[in-house]
This record gives sequence, structure tokens and C-alpha cells, in this order.
Amino acid sequence: MFRTLIFAFALLLGSAAPANTPPTKITVMAGGLNHPWSIAFLPDGGVLVTERAGTLKLLHNGQLRTVRGVPRVLATGQGGLFDVVLHPQFAANGLLYLSYAAGSFKANATYVARARLVSDQLRDVQVIWKADPSKRGGVHFGGRMAFLPDGTLAITTGDGFDYREHAQKLDSPLGKVMRITDAGKTPADNPFASQPGAIGSIWSFGHRNPQGLAFDPVRQRLFAHEHGPRGGDEVNIITRGGNFGWPVATHGRDYSGATISPFKTYPGMIDALVVWVPSIAPSGLAVYRGRMFPEWEGDLLAGALVDKEVRRIDLDEAGKVIGQQSLFKNLNARIRDVRVAPDGAVWLATDSEQGQLLRVSRQ
Amino acid sequence: MFRTLIFAFALLLGSAAPANTPPTKITVMAGGLNHPWSIAFLPDGGVLVTERAGTLKLLHNGQLRTVRGVPRVLATGQGGLFDVVLHPQFAANGLLYLSYAAGSFKANATYVARARLVSDQLRDVQVIWKADPSKRGGVHFGGRMAFLPDGTLAITTGDGFDYREHAQKLDSPLGKVMRITDAGKTPADNPFASQPGAIGSIWSFGHRNPQGLAFDPVRQRLFAHEHGPRGGDEVNIITRGGNFGWPVATHGRDYSGATISPFKTYPGMIDALVVWVPSIAPSGLAVYRGRMFPEWEGDLLAGALVDKEVRRIDLDEAGKVIGQQSLFKNLNARIRDVRVAPDGAVWLATDSEQGQLLRVSRQ
Repeated sequence: MFRTLIFAFALLLGSAAPANTPPTKITVMAGGLNHPWSIAFLPDGGVLVTERAGTLKLLHNGQLRTVRGVPRVLATGQGGLFDVVLHPQFAANGLLYLSYAAGSFKANATYVARARLVSDQLRDVQVIWKADPSKRGGVHFGGRMAFLPDGTLAITTGDGFDYREHAQKLDSPLGKVMRITDAGKTPADNPFASQPGAIGSIWSFGHRNPQGLAFDPVRQRLFAHEHGPRGGDEVNIITRGGNFGWPVATHGRDYSGATISPFKTYPGMIDALVVWVPSIAPSGLAVYRGRMFPEWEGDLLAGALVDKEVRRIDLDEAGKVIGQQSLFKNLNARIRDVRVAPDGAVWLATDSEQGQLLRVSRQ
Repeated sequence: MFRTLIFAFALLLGSAAPANTPPTKITVMAGGLNHPWSIAFLPDGGVLVTERAGTLKLLHNGQLRTVRGVPRVLATGQGGLFDVVLHPQFAANGLLYLSYAAGSFKANATYVARARLVSDQLRDVQVIWKADPSKRGGVHFGGRMAFLPDGTLAITTGDGFDYREHAQKLDSPLGKVMRITDAGKTPADNPFASQPGAIGSIWSFGHRNPQGLAFDPVRQRLFAHEHGPRGGDEVNIITRGGNFGWPVATHGRDYSGATISPFKTYPGMIDALVVWVPSIAPSGLAVYRGRMFPEWEGDLLAGALVDKEVRRIDLDEAGKVIGQQSLFKNLNARIRDVRVAPDGAVWLATDSEQGQLLRVSRQ
């Protein structure tokens, strides 16, 4: 009498369901998380999750434990504990990296600390990098990280909102993608490493507030997306020394409605791969490489806070954007992070005082 | 490298895991529900869910549709659309029953309407019963329903908070379990059907605010639980004409801390099967009868709003309470309803402006 329920949880932007809409199910792995921000998968099956207010939790066998030893963060506005990523040789060295806001409301910065995870304790915690000099205010910190295949670490910083012109300045750490060694040093081959007056860790500039960063090992591309002003969210392919235009070239307007720039593109500045008008407020980005959803192979999965969904950006073999799809809209949840687990399942962190870790698997 | 994760989602009140703690997984079937209140399973695999503000939704193939034709409800305080139950012959006649608060803040009552579900439309909507006369205020409406094996319908009413002495009065509809025919009439065998001045639909009395009602077809017992005052939540076995004591006998105190009654038991009044001190704020009740969790066969599953869990009340073969277990605590969610689906999975509705329908199945 009761038939098997098939719940697709996929809502198309268009009307017809394409062949690449696999049936999915969404499992609650943990709930009651206070604004979870980022997810990392441990080799032993444990899952780390940051909570913005400054706690790092470890999910293991259905139980959430608090990891002790997290540095003190500035938990105000958008500030707090952001990303957690594992060292590429984590299985051997136990090293992880945390990004976070620290300091005071009047003088703060995006920091990166390195630590060794021993059971549920951080040891040898060391700040290896900070966005120096400090800025003022509680918004636009960036804060995503990704290891690159050469063992260096990419980090995003925001423009601090009140400092948008800094995104174009090479002596400011704001509005950048940075690249450092796993010990926090400036790699000699960084584009401005030997330019007088420039910050050596800068890898690319002209960003507003990038909250998604993911490296595709197959195409060897670093993708980032960023919150634009009203109507100017972007996905970019990050290149060495690239200028991504903010605030000179943008599709967005100021929240007041005022024009920010007459230019949507500008000579010498790199156009976005995708522009979202209106804004979706993207946070969390993954390149899908996994066995569970071959339909999505190589595609980008971007979390959306305002649109309350995951946006799949369909890329063809050449890496060209051929479409977008709205996923998991039925959750009606602000999505803060999207990650692909080692088994190919997609994990989501929902942004709420009662946030959840959700696992999307094949039905 | 990545081992299979087994998430038990079962937290024991004690320390050791008993044999009756099966591994479970929790799947999000729908999200973004505005204070979902009750769940009903259609024979075709669809699932109905009420939202307290007054909408009835139908989940089918992962899509939520709004069912049109729901009567206008009084959505204030605890009032609104409550329960939805199917007629025992729903497959043949398409009839369903809705309970809800209607009227104004100054004069309102708990109503029961009957309607025919045709696709996503209610037809022939008819109010078949109301708690007459009206009361004032926006709390303690009761509002759960359950069909009994003789085809009659049981309905709970609350004491309206300001009228607690009415729970003992047979000329008041407040603080009662009612029993009516499927057309809303008084069955001739109701205990007070022929008593002058009494309301004929009363089946039992002395209740405070029962928000859980479930019939066990195997033991042939009608269970109800009710919100007590501070520290006096109860589970009762409802019997014909029974007086369950409120407000004469209670384990609870007033919210002020004042004593309500010197009596915890009283001659002629029926003691509770379970008393929860402190209160868990129960809402939603199911008797587990299903194939998926034989460990729970015949047990009661009670949702808890304040305790944010499901409380399993372990009953032995004779129906005696032999223990309690806290389930799904990791969700950290206020549980408004608990139902057992035809396949034996347990469905939960979480109480929030972004409420979810969750399906608990065996891992």
C-alpha cells in the first residue's frame, strides 16, 4: 500500500529535468551547530566543523566533541572562526590550518594559524600569517583556504567593506587571494614577491569578499567566488598576479543603488567566469570530483546564503560554463559551506544558530 | 581511507547503550516549513503536513505543494492549524479531518473540520465539531486527534490556561478528551451522553493541555500525554469517563512556583502512567508498531519541545513502564510531531520557522 518514496530534492532553474539530475537523499549528520562555517574530513572518518563564534567540533560516530586549543577569535558581525583545512600530509604530520578574525573591532585582521590535532586537542598552535596591517570593522574578512598541488596554501581576504579601493593596492592585504608556504612564508615565485612596497603573499587582487575557494586537480584550476555588491557576485578562475577588477569593474551596484563603476569589464582586468545578477550571496565552493555523482563530474557546487540552495555550475569538457542548476532548494536553508567527502557524497553546512551538517548521497 | 560512518543518533539517559538502541539515520524530507504541527501518510506515498499558521502541504516526489481549501484559522500564540488525520476508509472515501483554532482572540475554540482531498484541493469542507462555548486567549487548545477502532474520532482540548477549573466541569469543553462519530455526532455510548447539563462528546476529563494522542491497536489502549504546569507533564491511558485529575491532582507547580494543589493523587482520579519532572514539554505521540525497529515494538515515542528530543517510553509485554530513552538529541531540535510511517520509519516534524520533516530509518 505504501510505495517507496523517491525524493529528488533537485529543483531546476528551467522546467524540464535534465539527465544530470540524480535522485538524492539528505541525511542529518549533526544539528544544533552555532553558525557552522567549514567542514574538513579526517582520514579516520571523523569530520571537523568550525562554528563561527570560535569553536571547532569533531564529529565521530555520531557524537560531537569540542576540540580544545582553538585560538581566541574576534566573533563579531561576520567575524569569527572561518575555515579549517588539513595539510596535504595530514595523515603523517597531523597538521591543520585555521583561518579566523582576530583583534578588536577597531583593529582586526584575517589570521591563519597552524596546529597539530592530537585526539580532540590542538597542540603547537602557531599564527603563521595575518593580513597586516589591521583594518577596522566587523565585515568582509574573506577567510577561505585551499592547498595547491605544490604544497602552498591559498587564502582569501575581503576588502573590509570600508576599504574597497584597497583591493587594487598591492601594499594592502585587503581584497586579495594570498599564497603562502605551509609554514606561512612568502614563496619566491609569488608575482609581487620582489616588488618594492608590495605585500609578498599576494597571488591575485581586485577581489571584494571571496568566501569560496577550491582547486580542481584535474583541470589544475583554482576557482574562487566572491560576494559582489548588489548584483555582482562572481566566480573567477584565479591566476597568478591577476587583477579581478573590484572596484573598478563590476556588474554590481552599491546597496544604495548608486553606481560603483561605469565599467563592467576593463582592459587588463580579468572577467568573471560567472556573474550572478541578482546576487545569490555565495559561500562555500567545491569542485565535484567523486564517484557518487558522475553526472556532476568536474562541476562547481556553490553554496548560496540568500538563495538558500546549492548552485551547480555545469562545465563542459573544455571548462566552459554550459548551464546552472539549483539544488536542494527544498531544504530552504542558508548554505554556508559545500564540500565533497572522500566517498563522493556532498556535505553541506547550514547557516543558522541551529545549523546542521547534512550529507547528500545518492538515493 | 575513508571508513563508513555509522551515526547512531541515540543518546542514552544512562551511560551504557542497551540492546534496543538500533543504529539510525535521519533524512531531511522537506525543509523551510513554518512551524509544522502534524503529519499524515497517504496511501499513494504522499505525506500531508500542517503548518500552524494555517496551511496544509502535500509532499510528493520531493516536491511540496500547498493544498487549497483549508478553513480560516486563528493563528495567534499557540493557536492555528493543528492536526490532520485520515478517515480509516480514506482510500475509499478520500476523507480527512483537520483540527484548528478559529474565532477571535476574545472568543475562540478548537474546531474539527472534515473534507475530501481531491488532488491538492479540499472539497466539501464542513465543520463537524467545535469546543462550545468559546473561550478567550491564545493558548492551550489541545488539538490532537486519533481514530479509534470502532470508527469514532478522539479529540483533545486544552484548558485554555485561564480556565483550569473547567477541566473538572462536564458542562465545559475545556481540558477534555472528546469522542465523536466520523460525522461529528455524539455516540450514544459516550459516558455523559445522557447526563443532563453535560457535554455529550466528553470521553475523559481533568486534562490540562494534551498535545499527543495515539491508539495502540495491539493493546487496544488510547494513550495521551499533556503539558503539565512546571514539572507536571503526564502520559495517561485514557479510559471511558475517566477523571485525570487536573487541576486537583498534579505533580506540577504554577509557573510562579506557587502550589497548585496539595494532591499528587486523589481518590477517584486516575494516576498518570508517566510523570515528567522536570517538564519536557511533550508534543506528538506515536505507539511504535512497525517492522523497521523491532527493538521499539509497542513502545511510546513522545516528541519533546523543550528537551529537544524524542523520548522513548519502554513498555514491557504487560504494558508496564520499564524505562525511558532519549533519542535524536543530536538534532538539537524542538520536536512537534512524531509519527510512524507505514514502512516502519519514524517521521518527525521540528518546530521552527524553518521547520523540517525528518525521516528516521535504520542505518
